[in-house]
Amino acid sequence: MTLPTPLTGVIPPVCTPLTPEGEVDTASLTSLTDHLVTAGVDALFVLGSSSEAAYLTDAHRRTVVETVTGHVAGQLPVLAGVIDMTTPRVLDHVRAVTAAGADAVVATAPFYTRTHPAEIERHFRLLAERATTPVFAYDQPTSVPLKLSPDLVLTLARDGVITGLKDSSGDEGSFREVLVNSRALPGFSVLTGSELTVDSALAMGADGVVPGLGNVDPEGYVRLYRACRAGDRERARAEQERLCRLFGMVRVGDPARMGGSSSALGAFKAALHLRGVIACPVTAEPQVPLSAAEVERVGKFLAGAGLL
Amino acid sequence: MTLPTPLTGVIPPVCTPLTPEGEVDTASLTSLTDHLVTAGVDALFVLGSSSEAAYLTDAHRRTVVETVTGHVAGQLPVLAGVIDMTTPRVLDHVRAVTAAGADAVVATAPFYTRTHPAEIERHFRLLAERATTPVFAYDQPTSVPLKLSPDLVLTLARDGVITGLKDSSGDEGSFREVLVNSRALPGFSVLTGSELTVDSALAMGADGVVPGLGNVDPEGYVRLYRACRAGDRERARAEQERLCRLFGMVRVGDPARMGGSSSALGAFKAALHLRGVIACPVTAEPQVPLSAAEVERVGKFLAGAGLL
Amino acid sequence: MTLPTPLTGVIPPVCTPLTPEGEVDTASLTSLTDHLVTAGVDALFVLGSSSEAAYLTDAHRRTVVETVTGHVAGQLPVLAGVIDMTTPRVLDHVRAVTAAGADAVVATAPFYTRTHPAEIERHFRLLAERATTPVFAYDQPTSVPLKLSPDLVLTLARDGVITGLKDSSGDEGSFREVLVNSRALPGFSVLTGSELTVDSALAMGADGVVPGLGNVDPEGYVRLYRACRAGDRERARAEQERLCRLFGMVRVGDPARMGGSSSALGAFKAALHLRGVIACPVTAEPQVPLSAAEVERVGKFLAGAGLL
Amino acid sequence: MTLPTPLTGVIPPVCTPLTPEGEVDTASLTSLTDHLVTAGVDALFVLGSSSEAAYLTDAHRRTVVETVTGHVAGQLPVLAGVIDMTTPRVLDHVRAVTAAGADAVVATAPFYTRTHPAEIERHFRLLAERATTPVFAYDQPTSVPLKLSPDLVLTLARDGVITGLKDSSGDEGSFREVLVNSRALPGFSVLTGSELTVDSALAMGADGVVPGLGNVDPEGYVRLYRACRAGDRERARAEQERLCRLFGMVRVGDPARMGGSSSALGAFKAALHLRGVIACPVTAEPQVPLSAAEVERVGKFLAGAGLL
Repeated sequence: MTLPTPLTGVIPPVCTPLTPEGEVDTASLTSLTDHLVTAGVDALFVLGSSSEAAYLTDAHRRTVVETVTGHVAGQLPVLAGVIDMTTPRVLDHVRAVTAAGADAVVATAPFYTRTHPAEIERHFRLLAERATTPVFAYDQPTSVPLKLSPDLVLTLARDGVITGLKDSSGDEGSFREVLVNSRALPGFSVLTGSELTVDSALAMGADGVVPGLGNVDPEGYVRLYRACRAGDRERARAEQERLCRLFGMVRVGDPARMGGSSSALGAFKAALHLRGVIACPVTAEPQVPLSAAEVERVGKFLAGAGLL
Repeated sequence: MTLPTPLTGVIPPVCTPLTPEGEVDTASLTSLTDHLVTAGVDALFVLGSSSEAAYLTDAHRRTVVETVTGHVAGQLPVLAGVIDMTTPRVLDHVRAVTAAGADAVVATAPFYTRTHPAEIERHFRLLAERATTPVFAYDQPTSVPLKLSPDLVLTLARDGVITGLKDSSGDEGSFREVLVNSRALPGFSVLTGSELTVDSALAMGADGVVPGLGNVDPEGYVRLYRACRAGDRERARAEQERLCRLFGMVRVGDPARMGGSSSALGAFKAALHLRGVIACPVTAEPQVPLSAAEVERVGKFLAGAGLL
Repeated sequence: MTLPTPLTGVIPPVCTPLTPEGEVDTASLTSLTDHLVTAGVDALFVLGSSSEAAYLTDAHRRTVVETVTGHVAGQLPVLAGVIDMTTPRVLDHVRAVTAAGADAVVATAPFYTRTHPAEIERHFRLLAERATTPVFAYDQPTSVPLKLSPDLVLTLARDGVITGLKDSSGDEGSFREVLVNSRALPGFSVLTGSELTVDSALAMGADGVVPGLGNVDPEGYVRLYRACRAGDRERARAEQERLCRLFGMVRVGDPARMGGSSSALGAFKAALHLRGVIACPVTAEPQVPLSAAEVERVGKFLAGAGLL
Repeated sequence: MTLPTPLTGVIPPVCTPLTPEGEVDTASLTSLTDHLVTAGVDALFVLGSSSEAAYLTDAHRRTVVETVTGHVAGQLPVLAGVIDMTTPRVLDHVRAVTAAGADAVVATAPFYTRTHPAEIERHFRLLAERATTPVFAYDQPTSVPLKLSPDLVLTLARDGVITGLKDSSGDEGSFREVLVNSRALPGFSVLTGSELTVDSALAMGADGVVPGLGNVDPEGYVRLYRACRAGDRERARAEQERLCRLFGMVRVGDPARMGGSSSALGAFKAALHLRGVIACPVTAEPQVPLSAAEVERVGKFLAGAGLL
C-alpha cells in the first residue's frame, strides 16, 4: 500500500515471538499483530532493533515480513528494517522485504566497518536509487559508529532520498534541529524512537512515535498520541509518566549477568507472555534469559501500570 | 583438510577483487591466490575484514570461498570469516562456508546489539557446539562493542571451544597475556593481525601472522616469518621496518573525504592493481574511491619498498 | 545568600571574557553580568563548561567568582563550578569558590581516571560532607567517562547529598526518569543544560535551564521561560524555535581546523563582542580562533534572530 | 640536572604513598625512592598516572616533587607530570614543578574539553615555548579524548618541541611507526609505558621504559632492561614473562565494586606495603580500597614472583 505522506501516529516496532527452539512463532506473531492493531496503532515496523532483527536469520526475517503483511492485508502500512553492515548487504534485504510485502524500508548507517559521513550519504543515495519503496533513515548511534547529523538528514530529506527519520538517538537537541528545519518539507516524516518523551516530541512537531514499549502497552501509547493531538497536555503528561514508570522494566536484568538487550527485550517478551499475547517469552541467542525473580519483577511493573 | 595443530606461519586475509559492477572477480581472485601461494604463505584467510567481508552479500561470500578452496584444492588450509551480528546469523554463515569447503571458521563477538562478556562466551560456545570445523576467535574491537578479554580467550581455549585467536586489537599487552598463559595448551594457535609488530609477536611466542598488507607483499612477510623462526633478529627487524614504511599507504586517502576502510582497503587494492595481480582496484559500496593522486602515492610507497 | 528551594528559572553559565593576553577581563565580565541580570535571569552559574572553566587557572577562577559575586552583591544567587579530576582537587576548588562568595557548587563525576559508579557516589558524598554550600551534580558525559545514571542521581537526591542536577547529557529519556521519580523531593532542583529543548524540559517538570546560548540572548531565554510558566505553549515554542535557529552559530567553525569547543565558545564570544557586551572575543589556549569569515557568519545568525 | 640525550633505561612512575588521612607520606616516599634508586633505575617520573597525580592537590604535588628531587639531589634525573586539562592550567604546573626541582615535564593532550589535533599541536608548542625544561609528550588515550597520532608526534619531535614520548597507549603499531620514523632524530627519546612488552619495545628500538609495576619490582625491570641491552633475548623473555604474571595483580579488585584505577593502584600500594617499602597502602579518594581478601591475593602474586 502507499504510505501516508507524512507517515504519522503510533508505529510500534513489533517484537518477534520465538519458539523454545528459536524459530519464529508465527501464531504468536499474528496474535501480537492483532493486539497492536486492535489497540489502534497507525502502522507496524517489523525487523527493527526491538524485533531482535540483529538476531534473526534471513529465513526468519522473510517469515516475519510475510506473516505480518499477510495478516494485516493492507489494513495499515508495514515498514521493515533492513539492518545490515553495508550497502550491498542492505540491498539484498531491501529486495527480500519488498518481495515479502513491506511498504517501506528502514535502514541504518553502515556499521562494523570504520565509516565516514560521506560514505553514509553515499549509502542512503544508493539505497534510494535501487529501492522500489520509500526509505526511512534509522538513527541508532548505540549500534553503529556514527550518529546521523541533522545536516545530513536534512540534505537527504531535501533531495528526496529519504522519506522520513526514525530517531532512536535519545538526543533531543539534534532531533529538534531536524524538526525545526524540515518544516518546509511537508511530506517528510519525523518519528521518535524514545518511549519516554513522546509528549514532548509531538509538542515539538514530531509526526509519530516508534516505541518498543508499545508492544506491551499499545493502548497507552495510542491514548498518549491522541491526547497530544487533541491538545490535552495534562492528560498526555499523566499517560506519559505512567509509561515512564512502566519502562523501568527494561532494567530488571542483572547487569553483572547480562547485557542491555537481554534485559530490555527479555522484559518486553516476558510482559507479552504474562499478558497472554505470546506463547513463549524466549529471546534469541546469545541473549541471557531473565531469571524467575526478574520475570516476577516484570509482573510487578505490569501490575503497577494497571496491565495485569 | 585438517588444520595443523597449532596453525602457524603467514596467513594473509585475502582481499576480494571486484569487477567495476561490484561482483566478485573470480579470475582476479584466482590470480591473487596464486600470488600468495607462490610467495610461500602457509594458509589463507578469506572473508575477513581486509576481504571486505562486511560489504559482500551472501552470494559473494559463497563465490569467494568456493573459488579459493576450489583453486587451492587442499594444498594449504583455507579459513573463512563468518562475520555477522549474532549467533543465529553467524551459524548460517558457518554452514555456508563449511559447505563451500572452508577448513575452519573465524568469528567475532556479537555486534550491533549491546552485548556482555557472558553473552560473548555463550556465543562462542554455541558456535563450537554446532560447527563441524575448528572455530577461531577474532578480536576486532574497532568493529564490535567489546574487546575479548585475555581471561575469556583463555577460558574458551582451555575448554576446547576455540582452536585459536586472531588478535587484531593492536593491544600487545593483552596479546601477551594470552601468549604467556596459553603455553600449557600446545595445540592452541595465537595469531597477530598486526602488520607492524610481526617480529615482536613471534619473539613473544605467537604462532603466526594475518597481515592485510600481506596481500601486497606476501614475499616480504614470508621472509620476515622465516627470519624470525631462524632466529635472525636483525634481518627480521630490517624486513619488518621496510614493511612498516610500506604500510604508510593505508593513510593515502584524504580523511576529510573518506573513512579509514576506504583509504586502507583502497590502497591495498590499488597496490595489487599496480603490481598487475588484479584487474580492477574498485572497492565495494559505499566506500569512497581513491583519487588519481592518491593512487599515485600508493605507487610511490610500492616503489620505495622495491615492489614496482 | 541562601538558595531558593528548589532553584528555578534561567541560570546562564556565564562566559569568561578574556583580554588579548589571556587574562580575565573583569570589566567585560561585569558588563556581561549586567547584560544578564538586566535581562531578568534568576541566578548565575560561573566556571561551567561554557565559562571555559577547563581553561582557567586557579587564579583566573578566583578572579571570576570574586568579580561576579562582588558585582551582584547578593541580588541573585551565584553558583560556581568546581571542575577538576577527583575528590581532593575538587575539594580545593570548593574551598576557593566558597571563600570567594559562591552560594553553591556544581561538580562533575571524576574524570581523567578510569572510574566506576561506586566511586562517583563516594565522590559526591565526600563533597557534600565537606562543603558548606549546597552541591549540584553536573551530568556532562561528553567530558567525563561515565554518565550519571538516574538511579544514582535519585539516590543522592533522596539522601540529601545533592541539592540539584544540572543535566547536560542531551539524553531526555534519562532526564525524564529523574524528573518523574523526584516529584516526592520538592526541594530538589532539576535543571537542563540543553539550549534546544527548554520548552519541553519545563513541560516535563524541570525547574530551570542553564543555556550557554543564554549569554548571547538572555532576554530570549527569559521570555521563553516565562511563556512556559504562563502556559502559553505556542509562544514558548515560537521563541524556542527562534533560539534553535540562533544556536546554529555553534557550528560556524571549520571542523577540519578546530574542535567543537573552539567553534561553539568562539561563536558565543564573537556574538557577545558583536553585540557590544564584551571588549574582546578571544578564547583561551589552545582553542583555535574563528576566522573573519566565520565571525561574519556569527553576525548573520545574530541578524537572523533580530539581535543585530 | 641536564637530561641525558636521549633519555634511556628504566624510569618508574613513582607511586605516591599517602597517610591514612590522605596527606603525602614523605617518609614513605623517601623510602620508595631509595627502593628504586638502589635497584638501579635510571631516572624517576613523579606525578604520572601511577602516581595518582589526578588525585593529588597542588600542595600535594609540590610536596612530592620537592621530596623526591631533594632526596635524590641530582644523582639521577627527575621528570614530573603536569597533568591538567588545558594549556593555561598545565603551564601553572610547569612553573610549579620546575620551581620544585624537576628536570623535565611530561604533558598529555588536553582533556575534559572536546579537542582536535590542531589544538593538541598548539598546546605542545605553547608548552615548549614557555617551559624552561624539556617537554615529553604523554600518550594516554584511556584518559584523554584523542590519541597522539604518529604523524603529530614526529612533527613535534622534528621541530624540537618535544624531547621524548611516553607512550601508554598500548598500541604497538603506532608506537613502532614513531620508532621507525624517528631514527634520524638521535636525541629523541621514545619510552614505553607498557609493563608487558618491554623486551619487544626495546628490540624495536625504544630508549626506555616507564613501568608502573616497576614500583613493586624495580630489580626485575632493571634486570630485564640490562638483559635486552646485552642481547640476551632468552633471559629477557623469561624475566618479562615473570613480570607479566606478577602484573596479574592489577585485576585483584572486584569490578562490580570498583574501577580499574582502584584495583591497579590499590594492588601496587598493597604490594609496596607488604614488601615493607611504604607505611600505609591507602589510595586517594574516591578510589575504593581493596578488601582483605584482595590484598591477600596481591600477596600471592608477590610470592609467586619470588618477592615475598
